[in-house]
Amino acid sequence: MGNIFGHTFRISTFGESHGGGVGVVIDGLPARLAIDLDHIQNELDRRRPGQSRLVTQRKETDTVEVLSGLDGGASTGAPLAMLVRNADARSGAYDHLAELYRPSHADFTYDAKYGNRTIAGGGRSSARETIGRVAAGAIAMQLLDALAAKQGRTAPEIISWVDQVHSVVAAVDPSTVTRDDVEVDPTRCPDPGAAELMTAAIEQARKDGDSLGGTVRTVVRNMPIGLGEPVFDRLEADLGKAMLSLPATKAFEIGSGFAAVEMTGLTHNDPFVPGPDGTPVTTSNNSGGVQGGISNGQPLLFRTGFKPTATISSEQDTVTTDNVATKLEAKGRHDPCVLPRAVPMVDAMTAIVLADHELRQLRNAVL
Amino acid sequence: MGNIFGHTFRISTFGESHGGGVGVVIDGLPARLAIDLDHIQNELDRRRPGQSRLVTQRKETDTVEVLSGLDGGASTGAPLAMLVRNADARSGAYDHLAELYRPSHADFTYDAKYGNRTIAGGGRSSARETIGRVAAGAIAMQLLDALAAKQGRTAPEIISWVDQVHSVVAAVDPSTVTRDDVEVDPTRCPDPGAAELMTAAIEQARKDGDSLGGTVRTVVRNMPIGLGEPVFDRLEADLGKAMLSLPATKAFEIGSGFAAVEMTGLTHNDPFVPGPDGTPVTTSNNSGGVQGGISNGQPLLFRTGFKPTATISSEQDTVTTDNVATKLEAKGRHDPCVLPRAVPMVDAMTAIVLADHELRQLRNAVL
Amino acid sequence: MGNIFGHTFRISTFGESHGGGVGVVIDGLPARLAIDLDHIQNELDRRRPGQSRLVTQRKETDTVEVLSGLDGGASTGAPLAMLVRNADARSGAYDHLAELYRPSHADFTYDAKYGNRTIAGGGRSSARETIGRVAAGAIAMQLLDALAAKQGRTAPEIISWVDQVHSVVAAVDPSTVTRDDVEVDPTRCPDPGAAELMTAAIEQARKDGDSLGGTVRTVVRNMPIGLGEPVFDRLEADLGKAMLSLPATKAFEIGSGFAAVEMTGLTHNDPFVPGPDGTPVTTSNNSGGVQGGISNGQPLLFRTGFKPTATISSEQDTVTTDNVATKLEAKGRHDPCVLPRAVPMVDAMTAIVLADHELRQLRNAVL
Amino acid sequence: MGNIFGHTFRISTFGESHGGGVGVVIDGLPARLAIDLDHIQNELDRRRPGQSRLVTQRKETDTVEVLSGLDGGASTGAPLAMLVRNADARSGAYDHLAELYRPSHADFTYDAKYGNRTIAGGGRSSARETIGRVAAGAIAMQLLDALAAKQGRTAPEIISWVDQVHSVVAAVDPSTVTRDDVEVDPTRCPDPGAAELMTAAIEQARKDGDSLGGTVRTVVRNMPIGLGEPVFDRLEADLGKAMLSLPATKAFEIGSGFAAVEMTGLTHNDPFVPGPDGTPVTTSNNSGGVQGGISNGQPLLFRTGFKPTATISSEQDTVTTDNVATKLEAKGRHDPCVLPRAVPMVDAMTAIVLADHELRQLRNAVL
Repeated sequence: MGNIFGHTFRISTFGESHGGGVGVVIDGLPARLAIDLDHIQNELDRRRPGQSRLVTQRKETDTVEVLSGLDGGASTGAPLAMLVRNADARSGAYDHLAELYRPSHADFTYDAKYGNRTIAGGGRSSARETIGRVAAGAIAMQLLDALAAKQGRTAPEIISWVDQVHSVVAAVDPSTVTRDDVEVDPTRCPDPGAAELMTAAIEQARKDGDSLGGTVRTVVRNMPIGLGEPVFDRLEADLGKAMLSLPATKAFEIGSGFAAVEMTGLTHNDPFVPGPDGTPVTTSNNSGGVQGGISNGQPLLFRTGFKPTATISSEQDTVTTDNVATKLEAKGRHDPCVLPRAVPMVDAMTAIVLADHELRQLRNAVL
Repeated sequence: MGNIFGHTFRISTFGESHGGGVGVVIDGLPARLAIDLDHIQNELDRRRPGQSRLVTQRKETDTVEVLSGLDGGASTGAPLAMLVRNADARSGAYDHLAELYRPSHADFTYDAKYGNRTIAGGGRSSARETIGRVAAGAIAMQLLDALAAKQGRTAPEIISWVDQVHSVVAAVDPSTVTRDDVEVDPTRCPDPGAAELMTAAIEQARKDGDSLGGTVRTVVRNMPIGLGEPVFDRLEADLGKAMLSLPATKAFEIGSGFAAVEMTGLTHNDPFVPGPDGTPVTTSNNSGGVQGGISNGQPLLFRTGFKPTATISSEQDTVTTDNVATKLEAKGRHDPCVLPRAVPMVDAMTAIVLADHELRQLRNAVL
Repeated sequence: MGNIFGHTFRISTFGESHGGGVGVVIDGLPARLAIDLDHIQNELDRRRPGQSRLVTQRKETDTVEVLSGLDGGASTGAPLAMLVRNADARSGAYDHLAELYRPSHADFTYDAKYGNRTIAGGGRSSARETIGRVAAGAIAMQLLDALAAKQGRTAPEIISWVDQVHSVVAAVDPSTVTRDDVEVDPTRCPDPGAAELMTAAIEQARKDGDSLGGTVRTVVRNMPIGLGEPVFDRLEADLGKAMLSLPATKAFEIGSGFAAVEMTGLTHNDPFVPGPDGTPVTTSNNSGGVQGGISNGQPLLFRTGFKPTATISSEQDTVTTDNVATKLEAKGRHDPCVLPRAVPMVDAMTAIVLADHELRQLRNAVL
Repeated sequence: MGNIFGHTFRISTFGESHGGGVGVVIDGLPARLAIDLDHIQNELDRRRPGQSRLVTQRKETDTVEVLSGLDGGASTGAPLAMLVRNADARSGAYDHLAELYRPSHADFTYDAKYGNRTIAGGGRSSARETIGRVAAGAIAMQLLDALAAKQGRTAPEIISWVDQVHSVVAAVDPSTVTRDDVEVDPTRCPDPGAAELMTAAIEQARKDGDSLGGTVRTVVRNMPIGLGEPVFDRLEADLGKAMLSLPATKAFEIGSGFAAVEMTGLTHNDPFVPGPDGTPVTTSNNSGGVQGGISNGQPLLFRTGFKPTATISSEQDTVTTDNVATKLEAKGRHDPCVLPRAVPMVDAMTAIVLADHELRQLRNAVL
């Protein structure tokens, strides 16, 4: 339980860091969607370890195989299953961890919940689990594009970037930033000055045997109006769940977020003015593009907070699985900062939520 | 769609602010739970309008009727349905709103999504919708108590309080605060000095025709270990969705939350030390009681951000439903600050998530 | 669990025979469906006890109240909740049954499963539980009509009738039978000769302190093509589940059903011939309108088998709740044959399944 | 949609007859279940083509690979994914079928629903799709055994057999038949005389270019009491859906089934008598082990009807995809009778339903 997500566009992910492979089954994908395999691979490459010196050097090509649901380059309407094999699984590298619980890892809780844990590489709690999400997210992006094209509107443009690493805060304009801007630098921060400082901070943290957290900011421009299902499946609730289900996340806010707390109704409310095409628009966007749980056509704006990577190479106090005090010095490969690789994960989960809600909303357009 | 929540303890809510009534159907409630009707009513009274001068003066007794699923004072295993009638439905009071969209309300988005809107009182987007949640939450609390009693452990203690209103921040110790402390003051802030300042701020906002936001902080002490279903139904993901599905919420964070961003792995990781009863404990709790999506037995700690009430009595710019600029002066009854009444809603959603996850975890205790 | 049905058109039923009332919450109903309350009441009246001398004389007006989701005569997109109050609840009439298990009733199994049972009238296992289904089914019928009207096609025509009571088998042509034909006689058998024999048989069974079973046959003409979601939610699988979830059902077959067993591929296969409007049609319909789990546009044809009512007024051997042999002489009000009242239940479940599948199929029409 | 089945023990299947492979992801499997891979392979071998001259001669080894969820021979609590590669995919063999619709196949309906069809071998509607079910069913069987062992009771014994092929009806005693009896003959009919006649009939049908249908009967002895979730997820409703979701099924009945129709309450009711261990038992079993949707501890008894294989080698009338009359002479490999290979499929679906319901029922044992 807990490995299936979505209502109509429904994904079921599987796989651990060290086993046969990881993947996803998508059920509910409309038939006749032309599938661009290169795009899926490209999104996986953005998530892949070893892509820059900033991230873990684990060697994986992460080549995706579509097992089913595809015929003549298009979806058939049957489940689309995708598999990525694990290659560089040095599980021996984790033997020294078998007898202790790493601080702020899932070792203790998996053991307590399941009476076991897949020690090597963190098992299901590894970032490797997100491969299935990123692959499914690429399909969701293609679906969003196709739905927009079919309806003669501009496709939603999902752009996430690293907005902050530790104390380095980027200055980025959500109304103009592009995916290319994000991909220019390995940090995935489109503010070049901030990117440089982030790089230095991450390098320093690695040298210090330490790690850093940060935030990913997301904008979705050209949002369809009317997505979100009050009351429990409000768009921000589903987005919040999606982001908080990613490894290492601690916080989520939409629009003004926690900053709303120190505003007042007069300054926080987004005034409507007549829009050029007969649809009202707002002159501010504290709502973050969602009102009453439903998208209002303004850019979707949200921010996700990630903690510093739990795996560090400094010595730490911990206990053995027998509840005896001990010391841990980590030796595994890891990211000193997950933020650059978190960006494609956030993009993917965003696309999955939006695709699901576009399909769910079809029923209200039918009468 | 979107009005059903939970996997095993599953609630289905219905009802608008102005109609026959609001309520909830709980499916999945174990049989033979002794039901305390007074406790349900008490939780509803905490949510009820008119309970203090700080909140909306709408007159509703909010008396709950159990329609089914109860026999001889205990749950039967069949769906437990509860209904609260609407009484003080002055829908005429909203006639002047029919032709315009109120800023930062759900008027425009409901209209865009559904091609209609229940104008009076906000319809399904009204806070009145949360009655079903609070009633179901009371049942969930009783279930949590009964499960703990059966297993010979101390019941989880869910305590939420108003932690901040606008710029007034309370100082409260999550390890000792009690439900009684929270209920002492109509603000539901257990820091008396802060409560006084919050009261003054709310009164002033009302006089100014304005409104204020704030945060609710929650602690759950005596947490069972092992709750949460990675990967999508991580405990913090389900809690985040639950809170972000409440009206007026903009943000959610667990444990260190966004503050984690400026910490490093060395300071953020929660070191394990041997616990007195053979179970490891942590010396800090930046994790907020959840690691790898699963509760670790430390107190659950999270914070939910609410925006200032969208309904204010100052004049605002907006548009008519025909996309023509106009002015709005609100006349409806409303809360200048939703925070005091949000507390029982947050408590309820917390209990619902925990009850569901306790039932889901049963399968891992069976072999 | 177990009281929610459907994927997109999702119903949640509640209520027992003897309590505050019974009802249903529909989540997923498209907005802007004009709701005909008289039609709902009419369907409930078809199901109502006391409508003829053939059925139980329990007095209930079964007047439906719509609690939510309706505004200006149309659905709002919010949950549509409906409630029917219980009126004639003589629970004292069941006191003598508290200490024993009635044969082939749910007394023993409810007690074993839940550790209790709602003795009076059978609780949740009573036919009264089906009120919520019939009310939701009426809404589903109206949705099917509206979808067809919108798309410029003839609406699916769902007609069920009593096809057999004990050894009396009706001769009815599924291609021409009308709902009016069915309603002519209290037996709901549109073959007048058979209806007369059925009436006599039912009257005799009542006199004998006995009860009779039978079958309901269903045809749906003007079926949309393409409904059904292989592999698990094949149309016949969902219809089968729907019918087998009705009280007293023992069997379901689609098209040729069990008779297929003694046919061969050559005689059973339905040959395609060119259809008049460019769509192939079949010259026989052993498939019952479903091939590969998906509707093919031919009339949907299925049959549901009901056992003889378990409640009879003859003396029977049974045991006490303490596992001691005893005798039971039933005294409760009951139907000597459930078939006439089963017809609207079958119609309702059929409509619910079809409405859900029409909404689910929307995604495949969108690209 | 439609490819996920179950509530707590939840399976998601994928794959077509001619593609990368077929498989299943199980979500909700309890942790620490010892997994017997040989048993899974053995169940797959029972389903495999080419196992006898009675069934299709397609060459597949159907070797299963567990991709995830397994560690040290036991389930980890994470999704257990299994993959079987397609090997003998002669899709060229189907080229001549691309331009026409085969009678009583899914060609036309898939095309109508999805706007495409995977022509080769029937795609998702192929019996090959059931591999994922059979693999998941083997895991479910192992779970049922482990749950019983843990609770100190005898494990449920699921035995299905071919009860009828065309007009040949077997005489088998459900109270004594064993799995070994079933496996003795390639027909999977444990009545040797009937098996011989069935073999002859099947051979003759093959020579005649024809095909035969039949029934599978199932008994589950040592049934736990209390399984089934009224009202929609009654045990017989979930079993019915499970069986009717298998390819080529047309009918399902539990206990007395359609024969109940010609019985009366007096003869159909199953009288209770005191059971030896303090639990009442019944002296007949027309209920088929289920009363009020819940298992009563008596053997579960049901019967599933299969149509004659749609693929036959005789010439048939049909139409082209352009709605023009044409002739079809089938050339693909196929089974003249699916019954022998249907047995492991029915066993698997039975185990999946029971395992899910055992996990769902845990909540009622907890207070």
